[in-house]
Amino acid sequence: MRGSTIFQRVSRAFHDHPSLSKLLVVVTVSGGGLVAYAEANQVNTPQITDSSEVDSKKKKVVVLGTGWAGTSFLRNLNDPSYEVQVVSPRNYFAFTPLLPSVTCGTVEARSIVEPVRNIVRKKKVDVQFVEAECIKIDAKNKKVYCRSNLNNNLNGQEEFVVDYDFLVIGIGANVNTFNTPGVMENCHFLKEVEDAQKIRRTVIDCFERASLPTLSDEEKKRILHFAVVGGGPTGVEFAAELHDFVNEDLVKLYPGVKDLVKITLLEAGGHILSMFDKRITTFAEAKFQREGIDVKTGSMVVKVSDKEISTKETKTGEISTIPYGMVLWSTGIGTRPVIKDFMAQIGQANRRALATDEWLRVEGCDNVYALGDCATINQRKVMEDISAIFTKADKDNSGTLTVKEFQEVIADICERYPQVELYLKNKQMRDIADLLKESKGDVAKESIELNIEEFKSALSQVDSQMKLLPATAQHMNLSYVPVPWMRSQVAAQQGVYLAKCFNRMEECEKNPEGPLRFRGSGRHRFRPFRYKHLGQFAPLGGEQTAAQLPGDWVSIGQSSQWLWYSVYASKQVSWRNRALVVSDWTRRFIFGRDSSRI
Amino acid sequence: MRGSTIFQRVSRAFHDHPSLSKLLVVVTVSGGGLVAYAEANQVNTPQITDSSEVDSKKKKVVVLGTGWAGTSFLRNLNDPSYEVQVVSPRNYFAFTPLLPSVTCGTVEARSIVEPVRNIVRKKKVDVQFVEAECIKIDAKNKKVYCRSNLNNNLNGQEEFVVDYDFLVIGIGANVNTFNTPGVMENCHFLKEVEDAQKIRRTVIDCFERASLPTLSDEEKKRILHFAVVGGGPTGVEFAAELHDFVNEDLVKLYPGVKDLVKITLLEAGGHILSMFDKRITTFAEAKFQREGIDVKTGSMVVKVSDKEISTKETKTGEISTIPYGMVLWSTGIGTRPVIKDFMAQIGQANRRALATDEWLRVEGCDNVYALGDCATINQRKVMEDISAIFTKADKDNSGTLTVKEFQEVIADICERYPQVELYLKNKQMRDIADLLKESKGDVAKESIELNIEEFKSALSQVDSQMKLLPATAQHMNLSYVPVPWMRSQVAAQQGVYLAKCFNRMEECEKNPEGPLRFRGSGRHRFRPFRYKHLGQFAPLGGEQTAAQLPGDWVSIGQSSQWLWYSVYASKQVSWRNRALVVSDWTRRFIFGRDSSRI
Repeated sequence: MRGSTIFQRVSRAFHDHPSLSKLLVVVTVSGGGLVAYAEANQVNTPQITDSSEVDSKKKKVVVLGTGWAGTSFLRNLNDPSYEVQVVSPRNYFAFTPLLPSVTCGTVEARSIVEPVRNIVRKKKVDVQFVEAECIKIDAKNKKVYCRSNLNNNLNGQEEFVVDYDFLVIGIGANVNTFNTPGVMENCHFLKEVEDAQKIRRTVIDCFERASLPTLSDEEKKRILHFAVVGGGPTGVEFAAELHDFVNEDLVKLYPGVKDLVKITLLEAGGHILSMFDKRITTFAEAKFQREGIDVKTGSMVVKVSDKEISTKETKTGEISTIPYGMVLWSTGIGTRPVIKDFMAQIGQANRRALATDEWLRVEGCDNVYALGDCATINQRKVMEDISAIFTKADKDNSGTLTVKEFQEVIADICERYPQVELYLKNKQMRDIADLLKESKGDVAKESIELNIEEFKSALSQVDSQMKLLPATAQHMNLSYVPVPWMRSQVAAQQGVYLAKCFNRMEECEKNPEGPLRFRGSGRHRFRPFRYKHLGQFAPLGGEQTAAQLPGDWVSIGQSSQWLWYSVYASKQVSWRNRALVVSDWTRRFIFGRDSSRI
Repeated sequence: MRGSTIFQRVSRAFHDHPSLSKLLVVVTVSGGGLVAYAEANQVNTPQITDSSEVDSKKKKVVVLGTGWAGTSFLRNLNDPSYEVQVVSPRNYFAFTPLLPSVTCGTVEARSIVEPVRNIVRKKKVDVQFVEAECIKIDAKNKKVYCRSNLNNNLNGQEEFVVDYDFLVIGIGANVNTFNTPGVMENCHFLKEVEDAQKIRRTVIDCFERASLPTLSDEEKKRILHFAVVGGGPTGVEFAAELHDFVNEDLVKLYPGVKDLVKITLLEAGGHILSMFDKRITTFAEAKFQREGIDVKTGSMVVKVSDKEISTKETKTGEISTIPYGMVLWSTGIGTRPVIKDFMAQIGQANRRALATDEWLRVEGCDNVYALGDCATINQRKVMEDISAIFTKADKDNSGTLTVKEFQEVIADICERYPQVELYLKNKQMRDIADLLKESKGDVAKESIELNIEEFKSALSQVDSQMKLLPATAQHMNLSYVPVPWMRSQVAAQQGVYLAKCFNRMEECEKNPEGPLRFRGSGRHRFRPFRYKHLGQFAPLGGEQTAAQLPGDWVSIGQSSQWLWYSVYASKQVSWRNRALVVSDWTRRFIFGRDSSRI
């Protein structure tokens, strides 16, 4: 994946020479222009095969969704023996981490979207796109029920059924209101491009309305009170963006009401950005306090009426109401109804997202894959398979395991159960023998032999490491990973991974490359999916960004902002997006943000 | 007015050296970037005076509307002794001639809008903006009734009253459906920015819907049939834009349905672009025919249902129906209800737009001015004032007029009644004496003397020239000037003119500079408004534009397209708009138009 290497390179260069990052942006951008032009000129002949000519023996892959997961799957699928049908209510991919920037016009909505048809049109694989919503998955009969969502005079809604051989589900999640009354009716969300556009209009609405001649000062204050519920990265970034928009642009245009503006950030937990390093949290809280953004932690929203938010202090239980003009709800994500329905069908009713195995296959049905926000990987525990592992490793069937026997399978164990590797690393053990030694006491390495009970006891603590594994069930549990950038990267990496599996399906059927099957014979076809965590950002406004890179490396300030610009520019799916996003940033520097209410 | 000089310069340079025009664009644009940056950096301190400090003795000017008329008035008003209140439902100015480009994404909506508050914030004049709609004008009590049009949870609609000393009405017109059934419900229009955005989404909707797997070919054909009603410049430009969008961009993305697309242009008259030179009409009709755009002239739309248009052949009276997917209605403009209501109040009920005198003052009330699309100048006829003119000119009260006497007032007559000048020009008379001579027969110039009857007869034909005068009642009659570019220029020039009058109100009260008052004593305060026609364009798609410049100079082709780019770029109200529009054009050349449905 090119994107990730650029990230790594930038990140490494940045470590070595901090001043490099600015140069890199400039080079990337100006180089981009040239390449973009060349690229755009090449592609004059569309290569999509007409669907009528399609070989009917092709295996039919249906992809649901055109978000990070679906799009990265489509971009990386190269095997022309598939016939792909994409079903999504949006005919474009949106670079969601930039949505907060769209809310205030720092970046234009159109700069961060790219039509799916454009993404796939140069592929050798036959890809057909249908703008429709999936309303039901019937895994038993391998059918997907869809409804076209074009609500205009073109004939209302249209339903149809699509058959599949393989189904790839990447339809994401919806907002999670936690059933708080009034949230759906009165709050803004930040999931879709339309949401961001609506927020932008509403912010200007509030300023225009507060400028009407007839209102009392109290009413003006209410209208100019912007509340953000949820102190995660999205809420924090929106609050920061809004603060910049108001102070850099709107104060000049609305001098009469500028002193009445207030931004409040409501967080039920003890701190904002709780999923980041403590240093970042502290910096962000101090910065917001300095700038007059009111951060209210320990304050849970229990109700939202059309003009007031009711909050409950988590400590005292005291209920209070705050009048507001606009409220953004960004507290995490929930399960889409169609996924809930599908989960009930396949016996996963009590879960919060589709459980898959480490190969992204949905548990309980065949040839269905799920990735991105709608899925969670159910990482297998070592203890579930401990007897099978022992039997497999004990090649001479002696009933005991020697270090040598164990060392022969340890690579497979670590691949299949990444928690083992993590456990060794965290315990600072150099060798697997140390693990066995620990349970056996002071014996020479070579002579260690364990029976099944001793083996179990040696590995008994390993599964506790699973909560530290990125992208495992615990971590992927929706309420625990509210970092949109990280979620998008998990989805993107899963898409790439799955596409590569699909590309090599036949090849790996013959020569499986995965770890040993402990409960069966032979090897797994593919290596299991592993998420590579490359770091995450929290833009804090005023050209200050907090970056948390792997290895607990934390950087806060303007240099991280430049790293953020570089990474976000490089991760765009097309040169068009890249050029537009960079030109939007430039435009903002020169002319500020536009405040026309369109 | 800077804009017009740039136009004249470009136009002149273009005449002399056609290749210059391209160079000019490049220089303008790159120079623009620098100036824009310098300009943007200058303005850090907002200079708007707080309304509470405003001197209560200031004369209060209320401006309705922020279109071409209102905005150019505001930009040119410099006298700080006025207190200005702007009331408009849109807090931005939109460069309307580029709306057809917005429908297909050649230019982005946000590139052609500029917030009014931004336009006025550097002025020395105290300008307050209120985002509201005017719902009633009460000229008797000098009050304007307004309603805030923010329909969200911010408190519904709010009504309030604004007093004025001077009222400037520039609220434009609305669409004219000619009461054709079904038009309001089923057609798209192209008056506002939102209209253009909606059309853009609908075009993509049609393509997505036609790509659904379940539809019959007949249904697909219907959905991909784009009908345009009205063969004026807007309809023609939209048809051309759409044709380019389909053929340059969409065919690559929708290869399965590209052959089903059809564009039909319906015109009730005998030709499209009938207000242009015959050469342009012929060229446009031939070009459209070549490209497969179906031009149906002599075909009047009598009804629009949700899926079909009914037309009547003007020759045969035959009714036929055409299935369609999307229809744009662009047949001219009508009167807004609030103007109709106001006209009834002041005794203008049977007119189609507010009648003003040549100084843009609304007839029948005091201190009310109207400009732009909602107004029409009621040019006074010579014959109405003929006796007064005779008496005024006959200084020695001899009962007859000598050539010398006549020559002393002819400048004033020509200024007050521009038709006289036009008559002389069209009759190829060098001297006013020739006019008198004509009625008197073969007499030596010096000895001509006319009595009142002879004078009347000499001038009897003059008023017939009024229909050829640009911006007079006949021409300004709404159904006769459907050229949006020309309408916008009339409105802009009227705004400049009126602002200059306001700036010099006191000065000209003392030293009037207008023509003689033939019916009263002294002189008019100001010279009457005169529209300077600088030419008009009809973009025909495929980088071909027809230009018709003054002096019947016609140019069609790519060089006119570059002239069009230059003029439209130079006429933008801000450097921000200019930079964005030019970068949009560049983006389109490199990456094509975006087809994401947002």
